[in-house]
Amino acid sequence: MEQKTQNTKPPILEDLNRWQKITEEALQKLLPSASTWPTILHQAMCYSLFAGGKRLRPAIIFASAETTQQFLGTNSGKLSDDCFERAKICACAIECLHTYSLIHDDLPCMDNDDLRRGRPTCHKVYGEAIAVLAGDALLTESFALLAKIKPTSRFSVSEFVACLARAASSRNLVGGQAADILSENKKISPRELRRIHSTKTAALLSASARLGAMSADAPREIVSRLGRFGFRLGLAFQAVDDILDVTAEATHLGKTPGKDAASGKATYPSLFGLDYARKQAEVLTHRAILSLNPLQCAADKLRQLAQYLLLRTH
Amino acid sequence: MEQKTQNTKPPILEDLNRWQKITEEALQKLLPSASTWPTILHQAMCYSLFAGGKRLRPAIIFASAETTQQFLGTNSGKLSDDCFERAKICACAIECLHTYSLIHDDLPCMDNDDLRRGRPTCHKVYGEAIAVLAGDALLTESFALLAKIKPTSRFSVSEFVACLARAASSRNLVGGQAADILSENKKISPRELRRIHSTKTAALLSASARLGAMSADAPREIVSRLGRFGFRLGLAFQAVDDILDVTAEATHLGKTPGKDAASGKATYPSLFGLDYARKQAEVLTHRAILSLNPLQCAADKLRQLAQYLLLRTH
Repeated sequence: MEQKTQNTKPPILEDLNRWQKITEEALQKLLPSASTWPTILHQAMCYSLFAGGKRLRPAIIFASAETTQQFLGTNSGKLSDDCFERAKICACAIECLHTYSLIHDDLPCMDNDDLRRGRPTCHKVYGEAIAVLAGDALLTESFALLAKIKPTSRFSVSEFVACLARAASSRNLVGGQAADILSENKKISPRELRRIHSTKTAALLSASARLGAMSADAPREIVSRLGRFGFRLGLAFQAVDDILDVTAEATHLGKTPGKDAASGKATYPSLFGLDYARKQAEVLTHRAILSLNPLQCAADKLRQLAQYLLLRTH
Repeated sequence: MEQKTQNTKPPILEDLNRWQKITEEALQKLLPSASTWPTILHQAMCYSLFAGGKRLRPAIIFASAETTQQFLGTNSGKLSDDCFERAKICACAIECLHTYSLIHDDLPCMDNDDLRRGRPTCHKVYGEAIAVLAGDALLTESFALLAKIKPTSRFSVSEFVACLARAASSRNLVGGQAADILSENKKISPRELRRIHSTKTAALLSASARLGAMSADAPREIVSRLGRFGFRLGLAFQAVDDILDVTAEATHLGKTPGKDAASGKATYPSLFGLDYARKQAEVLTHRAILSLNPLQCAADKLRQLAQYLLLRTH
């Protein structure tokens, strides 16, 4: 049995590929093309946006929407058209937002990274000014996209916008990145580290899960529950990320490994050692999965996704 | 008669002070305070946001809303409560957006400016990383604010968001800044210069006028008309800005004068000479005012605002 499991591809991989393809196609369709004036700016935006990202956050959106519809009994094997359209827009918005944060994080004045998703970073190719502006434009685009959403019976467009804006705000994503930079070469407490992970990573994964549930017009308690799952998954995801930064090779990782230690960043491994960090990643994943219990088998894809992210090697 | 006009303060000054005060107070109330975690980030945001800006864009919003209500006969001397609340939120959103664009434009990799609104620029005080992030956070905040708006009978929240996002996008504000930087030390045509001014400056002033009209639930043809006025006013405003960069002193200007010439920027004066540029500013202002004709005396404040901006010395 174990033998079989090890040789079989996890079924979630097929879903991940499908959601990735849907997201790529929607981004191509909804974003201005690389030939739009001013072309260098749009080329830079497309360069980073279509750099072979894993599209993990869109996957959480789609899986969360499927879970909701299945749990409510409104899913006959696939998402309803309206829900699918909404999830697609949310997926594109979150990828624009995520890509903007990567471009800005990689800047020389920030993490100063040369490699991202296996290719030179945006500012390495287009220069710093255009990289800053490409990030700015992608952040703006994420809200322009959400403005196109068709409201559900429970959720207005303003709630979609507010959900993403909160996760991206100075108290979450941007605040976490600021705190992360300010903590470089400083000794910080496990509590502070958790705060950075919560704001910098987990808030956006939580928003992804919420947006997916909202796309499927979930009752508010289900939106909150899936939001909690996304948050915990985010903490687990960051722990694994920190471990891979120590253990993986550049070719697998797609970015420069060992950067955290080199820049004096506080991480799970640097604070607790590699073994404890691995244990921590498992515990956090387990906790995320636990929060799905009331959704029963409707949440199976989210469970598989959490397991897959724990075992990933890049 | 002429003597009298020259000695009397233009009546619009009182309105400008009033709108400025309303905007300052609303920003204080609606934005996270400087003591919010992480404090340095929020200090940087407040530093730039409360640096004594003229709050011109909020003035356009309020004047546009007053014009609309007066023209529709729904204004008994002051804005209705609902309209006032909406205009206030739009005013805050547009100031967050404008301030973000200034912080990023001043960065060393962009215009590399040390002085803004008479004080050291954000990155000079807080460093480049925090300046980039403060800009990012303010841009995000502008959409978080718009998500709070109460829709009108004609305009949903998504239309407010879409209006601002379009003006701030890679085809307008960000695109104009990219084109501006890319044109440094290059000979560009008057047509290209106009395109940069249209996107970098006029689009946001046009959006301000539109948002004001939308706050007052204006019929769509009035929104378009006021948007056109704002656009033309934006072109005039940029022409005056370029002239002041040549003629004004740092103490009056609040930023480093002569920067345009030093960085090889194409401007009205550099392309056409100072005299023609002055003439051009007058023509553009006149054209903006012409577009207000059908609104009759309801648009008097917008006319005064346009005249005031033409004659400003900083």
